[in-house]
Amino acid sequence: MTFTIQGVNRMDHTLTKLIENALAEDLGPGDVTSEATIPANSTSTAFMLAKEDLVLAGLDVSGAVFHYLDPDIQFLPLAKDGDRIHAGTEIAKLSGNTRVLLAGERVALNLLQHMSGIATLTAHYVALLNGLNTRVLDTRKTLPGLRHLEKYAVRVGGGQNHRFGLYDGVLIKDNHIAASGGITQAVEAARKKAHHLLKIEVETRTLDEVREALAAKAEIIMLDNMPIDMMGEAVKLINHEAFVEASGNVTLQTVRAIAETGVDFISSGSLTHSAPAADISMKIK
Amino acid sequence: MTFTIQGVNRMDHTLTKLIENALAEDLGPGDVTSEATIPANSTSTAFMLAKEDLVLAGLDVSGAVFHYLDPDIQFLPLAKDGDRIHAGTEIAKLSGNTRVLLAGERVALNLLQHMSGIATLTAHYVALLNGLNTRVLDTRKTLPGLRHLEKYAVRVGGGQNHRFGLYDGVLIKDNHIAASGGITQAVEAARKKAHHLLKIEVETRTLDEVREALAAKAEIIMLDNMPIDMMGEAVKLINHEAFVEASGNVTLQTVRAIAETGVDFISSGSLTHSAPAADISMKIK
Amino acid sequence: MTFTIQGVNRMDHTLTKLIENALAEDLGPGDVTSEATIPANSTSTAFMLAKEDLVLAGLDVSGAVFHYLDPDIQFLPLAKDGDRIHAGTEIAKLSGNTRVLLAGERVALNLLQHMSGIATLTAHYVALLNGLNTRVLDTRKTLPGLRHLEKYAVRVGGGQNHRFGLYDGVLIKDNHIAASGGITQAVEAARKKAHHLLKIEVETRTLDEVREALAAKAEIIMLDNMPIDMMGEAVKLINHEAFVEASGNVTLQTVRAIAETGVDFISSGSLTHSAPAADISMKIK
Amino acid sequence: MTFTIQGVNRMDHTLTKLIENALAEDLGPGDVTSEATIPANSTSTAFMLAKEDLVLAGLDVSGAVFHYLDPDIQFLPLAKDGDRIHAGTEIAKLSGNTRVLLAGERVALNLLQHMSGIATLTAHYVALLNGLNTRVLDTRKTLPGLRHLEKYAVRVGGGQNHRFGLYDGVLIKDNHIAASGGITQAVEAARKKAHHLLKIEVETRTLDEVREALAAKAEIIMLDNMPIDMMGEAVKLINHEAFVEASGNVTLQTVRAIAETGVDFISSGSLTHSAPAADISMKIK
Amino acid sequence: MTFTIQGVNRMDHTLTKLIENALAEDLGPGDVTSEATIPANSTSTAFMLAKEDLVLAGLDVSGAVFHYLDPDIQFLPLAKDGDRIHAGTEIAKLSGNTRVLLAGERVALNLLQHMSGIATLTAHYVALLNGLNTRVLDTRKTLPGLRHLEKYAVRVGGGQNHRFGLYDGVLIKDNHIAASGGITQAVEAARKKAHHLLKIEVETRTLDEVREALAAKAEIIMLDNMPIDMMGEAVKLINHEAFVEASGNVTLQTVRAIAETGVDFISSGSLTHSAPAADISMKIK
Amino acid sequence: MTFTIQGVNRMDHTLTKLIENALAEDLGPGDVTSEATIPANSTSTAFMLAKEDLVLAGLDVSGAVFHYLDPDIQFLPLAKDGDRIHAGTEIAKLSGNTRVLLAGERVALNLLQHMSGIATLTAHYVALLNGLNTRVLDTRKTLPGLRHLEKYAVRVGGGQNHRFGLYDGVLIKDNHIAASGGITQAVEAARKKAHHLLKIEVETRTLDEVREALAAKAEIIMLDNMPIDMMGEAVKLINHEAFVEASGNVTLQTVRAIAETGVDFISSGSLTHSAPAADISMKIK
Repeated sequence: MTFTIQGVNRMDHTLTKLIENALAEDLGPGDVTSEATIPANSTSTAFMLAKEDLVLAGLDVSGAVFHYLDPDIQFLPLAKDGDRIHAGTEIAKLSGNTRVLLAGERVALNLLQHMSGIATLTAHYVALLNGLNTRVLDTRKTLPGLRHLEKYAVRVGGGQNHRFGLYDGVLIKDNHIAASGGITQAVEAARKKAHHLLKIEVETRTLDEVREALAAKAEIIMLDNMPIDMMGEAVKLINHEAFVEASGNVTLQTVRAIAETGVDFISSGSLTHSAPAADISMKIK
Repeated sequence: MTFTIQGVNRMDHTLTKLIENALAEDLGPGDVTSEATIPANSTSTAFMLAKEDLVLAGLDVSGAVFHYLDPDIQFLPLAKDGDRIHAGTEIAKLSGNTRVLLAGERVALNLLQHMSGIATLTAHYVALLNGLNTRVLDTRKTLPGLRHLEKYAVRVGGGQNHRFGLYDGVLIKDNHIAASGGITQAVEAARKKAHHLLKIEVETRTLDEVREALAAKAEIIMLDNMPIDMMGEAVKLINHEAFVEASGNVTLQTVRAIAETGVDFISSGSLTHSAPAADISMKIK
Repeated sequence: MTFTIQGVNRMDHTLTKLIENALAEDLGPGDVTSEATIPANSTSTAFMLAKEDLVLAGLDVSGAVFHYLDPDIQFLPLAKDGDRIHAGTEIAKLSGNTRVLLAGERVALNLLQHMSGIATLTAHYVALLNGLNTRVLDTRKTLPGLRHLEKYAVRVGGGQNHRFGLYDGVLIKDNHIAASGGITQAVEAARKKAHHLLKIEVETRTLDEVREALAAKAEIIMLDNMPIDMMGEAVKLINHEAFVEASGNVTLQTVRAIAETGVDFISSGSLTHSAPAADISMKIK
Repeated sequence: MTFTIQGVNRMDHTLTKLIENALAEDLGPGDVTSEATIPANSTSTAFMLAKEDLVLAGLDVSGAVFHYLDPDIQFLPLAKDGDRIHAGTEIAKLSGNTRVLLAGERVALNLLQHMSGIATLTAHYVALLNGLNTRVLDTRKTLPGLRHLEKYAVRVGGGQNHRFGLYDGVLIKDNHIAASGGITQAVEAARKKAHHLLKIEVETRTLDEVREALAAKAEIIMLDNMPIDMMGEAVKLINHEAFVEASGNVTLQTVRAIAETGVDFISSGSLTHSAPAADISMKIK
Repeated sequence: MTFTIQGVNRMDHTLTKLIENALAEDLGPGDVTSEATIPANSTSTAFMLAKEDLVLAGLDVSGAVFHYLDPDIQFLPLAKDGDRIHAGTEIAKLSGNTRVLLAGERVALNLLQHMSGIATLTAHYVALLNGLNTRVLDTRKTLPGLRHLEKYAVRVGGGQNHRFGLYDGVLIKDNHIAASGGITQAVEAARKKAHHLLKIEVETRTLDEVREALAAKAEIIMLDNMPIDMMGEAVKLINHEAFVEASGNVTLQTVRAIAETGVDFISSGSLTHSAPAADISMKIK
Repeated sequence: MTFTIQGVNRMDHTLTKLIENALAEDLGPGDVTSEATIPANSTSTAFMLAKEDLVLAGLDVSGAVFHYLDPDIQFLPLAKDGDRIHAGTEIAKLSGNTRVLLAGERVALNLLQHMSGIATLTAHYVALLNGLNTRVLDTRKTLPGLRHLEKYAVRVGGGQNHRFGLYDGVLIKDNHIAASGGITQAVEAARKKAHHLLKIEVETRTLDEVREALAAKAEIIMLDNMPIDMMGEAVKLINHEAFVEASGNVTLQTVRAIAETGVDFISSGSLTHSAPAADISMKIK
């Protein structure tokens, strides 16, 4: 199996566990209907079909579900992750044991529909920023166990990833500031304790906080839930001495205006926690 | 910890694994920001707050996240699953080690927002059927690893569960029918092979198929993607000799009209795969 | 590896874990005797041999043990599950690395002897019902971790499976009845709460209970530990309006008489919890 | 929980995994019957009851099943492992949540009945050797995953354990002898390679082999499937220069005669692989 | 249990698995010696004793070993991690079940001796830099499964941690440079692909490479295996526009001279892969 | 993969888990540097190179790391475990995907350097006993999770293994003696409880204890921390009626003198807990 999310084949291992758990959840001790009605050696050909326009993400993952069940299943991709697919397009051809095709169908589609849903929504956001330098970022607002697949789908849709977790980036929020006695002290503490390859981002809500973060030499300044006017002022204040990330109240309606303030990044949890599933089905011929 | 989904405490164990994985995904080798800026023995009080109207689901689950991290965290529910919550309402009070509160915040909210999103959407569907006997059902279109929590949230929202997986109910679809040589043969085969405590449901697309399923004594007949008129005829044909389930093209716009045909059940994948997250935040005071 | 219990290859995974644990239990950090006395590259041919008459079950499972240890082992079945084997018959030929053959021998035989023991005992029960429509059922009285293999062996021996666990069938017993306030109420509660693809079975001990279960439209009525005469009356009372299952005091001596009352099913825990191991050995040539 | 098999509490961990798997197998996603018919907060008292004469083994283990499900269950032993119990005796009193009592009942009894069956059968063998010095040993013919519990039950019944696996004792069989070029060479090789705390046992089938094993200074000599007369001669030949273990054709009918030849140990797989379950039930009052 | 490495109690979980595996490795199916010679209810008091001068690290970890085996063991620390301990000092008092004390002794000491060995060696390096601003860093040259404990021991000894793995920092080495077509291109690629909270370090071997890394605005420049003179020149060239890390040929003999060139960090694998175990024993009184 | 430590391929499984954990520790969610700078389809050739004289151990293990990541990596050994390697010698050639080579490099080398370090140190000890019959033994002083690899490395270096854990040999120490009431009683108890394939070793500190252990017919007598003169006397006293093992104060300086007393075995924890890593690197060409 050649699927890799970020990097080498080892990622297959994490993916394999996820697939194993998902199949255990759906199959339990076995598919009683197929066992009873379909001969053990029956073979079929099936197609995955887009039922609405979408940006495809997760095709290899869905193939991996069938591969896990039975390496003899032929899974022939007719498109690839990142493709813009029109309703009615066949996106994969499968052939092999009929019981296996039916056993894997639901889990494979559940993953593919969720990931394509995220990629499709992300692409909508990205398209709205056409011509600007602002990048769309995801957040840590992901579904338990699915973060890496969801963040991969965001990249497929043209977005960028924020940090992967609490461990690979310093993001100082109000509670950290309060506990440290101020932005200056919090940045200083982070500079001293975190290892030397991690940058420091500070969340701000007022222009005074922006000034203090800037003075403390934060490498990234987040503007959290600021009115658009204030964002514009903050961008001017910061004047490219730090990266600027806008966060809060990001919708398809507001994203362009936010970007036009000149922020470098706009992050939104909705990319991952509220993207509706893309409509994809599987038909056995 | 007293959380149970369906039945006894053993479910805690499955839940514990899910929480463990979700925290591993988010925390990795540690929260570098809090480590650097918050004293190890700092304690705080926090509140979970609804930021929009919602039906609450998953409060015990979110409490279990903190309990897993540190049994000394006090998690005081200010509402309970199933409650209709208004924007601005505090739904839980937490107190304990500040680092722990921040370490659990995101995972707890990710679960709570997803589950409450499902319960809220389900409740909308249920409300639209007010005065009718038709029940709203979920499907197997769930997110990998989250099926039991999602199906619980559907129940909290007033819906009913369909079978949990391929193992606890016989649902004969077109592929099974084709492989068996017809509806009659497929039902017969299932009756013979599946154990005697499982009922048999048959998916139909035409009135002829409905007639054949009825003749074969299927206990439940699914009307799949039928026009509403045809559904009405099917209901008359079946005449309470089997349960009737409608499936396909179910939206908030169509659900009432479908129910008024007299079907017993309406099932929809959107309850679980496309419910937007409910907006809930956690604030440390 | 092509072994499947009920359904697709995914079951291999559960089986693989069982084999892995069994080998870990037996091999621990290594086979000190073979390490010391048998060259690492020694190869041999071996035969599995029935030492008494038996119904074979588990041959693929025992092959899977060797496959797990070393995919290069050749495991050639000379018979198949369900075959009636006479004492002295060779049932499989193995060839490959000698240390591997010895490392897998005990675990493979332990499984094969247990499963064949169950199939053989089941076949005895089934043979005693020759000419009748009554079917022999297993129960949940299985050995921890081995339920699926044991229930498979029952099928191989000609029996049928009862529900697999507490999750895929409703069986209302005295405690449920007492807690609900009566058979009628218990059946009603189950009808409302359990999903619509599960049938309801009620355990009864008197003819009055049978009448009440029938009135409540239970789909299956269990006659628990009833005298044979009473069973006969119950069967008449029920008159094919529900399935009838006899349970309790089932032995090779009583099973025919019980069946002749006209019950549909007879269930017995002894099939799985008290079947003596079939005598099978492995000889290296 | 205070159950230990051999040694410290760590064994609890292995036991916990076994219990966890057994409950997952039986409960799956939940007990649909109890969920529907028994209120979540219902409490009950129950008794475990011997329904035939038996030697009790596994009472703590069965208590651990309930403890795993719910630490609030009160499990009061009314007897202890090793006790000879008469039919009709109550052996434990349980009280707590009714759903939990029903959820754990089957798994707890499956373990208790199997272990007590082994202890009871072992005790029969031991009783037949009354007045002799010969000890009854188990073998590696155990059920996958249950070896430690089964070997514990053998000890409870008055038997002794043979080695636990291939890793903690050297037992040279015909294949090892053939591969090494003779008993002498095989013993020598084992003496050199196995670590210095392991003794060496040699399996023999003729008096010549016994003589060679003795000359090679094997610490234990196994007499495999020898006629009783030959065993007597072997015992004389060996003359206490090595321990003597008899194996093969050991039944309740033959065991006394075998022992009277003067062998030190008699080993039999039937103790673990063919002991019928002891009849024990649980009744809720 | 209150042990945390980096952050919240969740780390206990990772630690618990490590302890569980280590005990399984050492105890296997049980401690045959203690089982035979020490009564199950025997209790004792024991002391951990330093047998040479050392910097203590891992005391809580070693306590966690006993806690895992038996929560009733009293583990009273008589010193704390980071303390400089003289030979002959008692560092912990334990009391509880004797078998448990002996079962945990070896695993607890193996961890404590290894971690204290690392802390002690690190402290030697740190002491040699007295009065300078240069910090001692560890590397990824750690023992599989022990990285977090080893990196914790480095911090206890006064060192700092480098990145934890390949995932939380960008370190561009010769192979990355070759594949990208040069330092400039490699830094650019990393800036574009890695998320915005990660800094970029470049490994250099010549002053030309240092100049190119500086021009590419690498945030950290590693001087790999450079002669000391060249390091001095590199430090001047860089002139505080990037952090400077020296690596290669770092020994107790060379570390001071390297630091005096003015580098910010010196990293050495020997801290973790070659620190001899500190001599600590446990005595039962 | 053909690597076996002690016995059959099953050991691969344990090794696979260790490799999986080690890679998870190092790679986490991915290698951000290689992802950014090296094309996904780039391929390279690399060499592992000894940078000092060493005895090689773990080459197959290090190959298994790459095999785990990607079975398409070609790993060509240019030497084999047990070879004495001179500085500058290439010991393996690797070719395949560049990202995979870099992803596996550190874990493979960490294992190889540690194991070769142990083999090299063991070989030094063994060389010092040239011409004598005394054998060098390891102990249970190993690093958690690495015992089997470390004990394998000791064998590769020419040493022998002591028991693998507390489960496969009886070693009676002072605490066991105290609890039993004396050496005689402790040996008797062990003889009765431990199974009949385990020998009994007794730790002694005085000649009186040696005499008592000898009288109790201990099969091995350990001389613990005795002065060399006393060891000589003990060896004479024992006079080949038991094996003699010397322990304590074993260094490269003392080992020859200890051996010359005539002891059969000398055991030392330093072989495994204090062997410095052998210097080995990997270079991509």
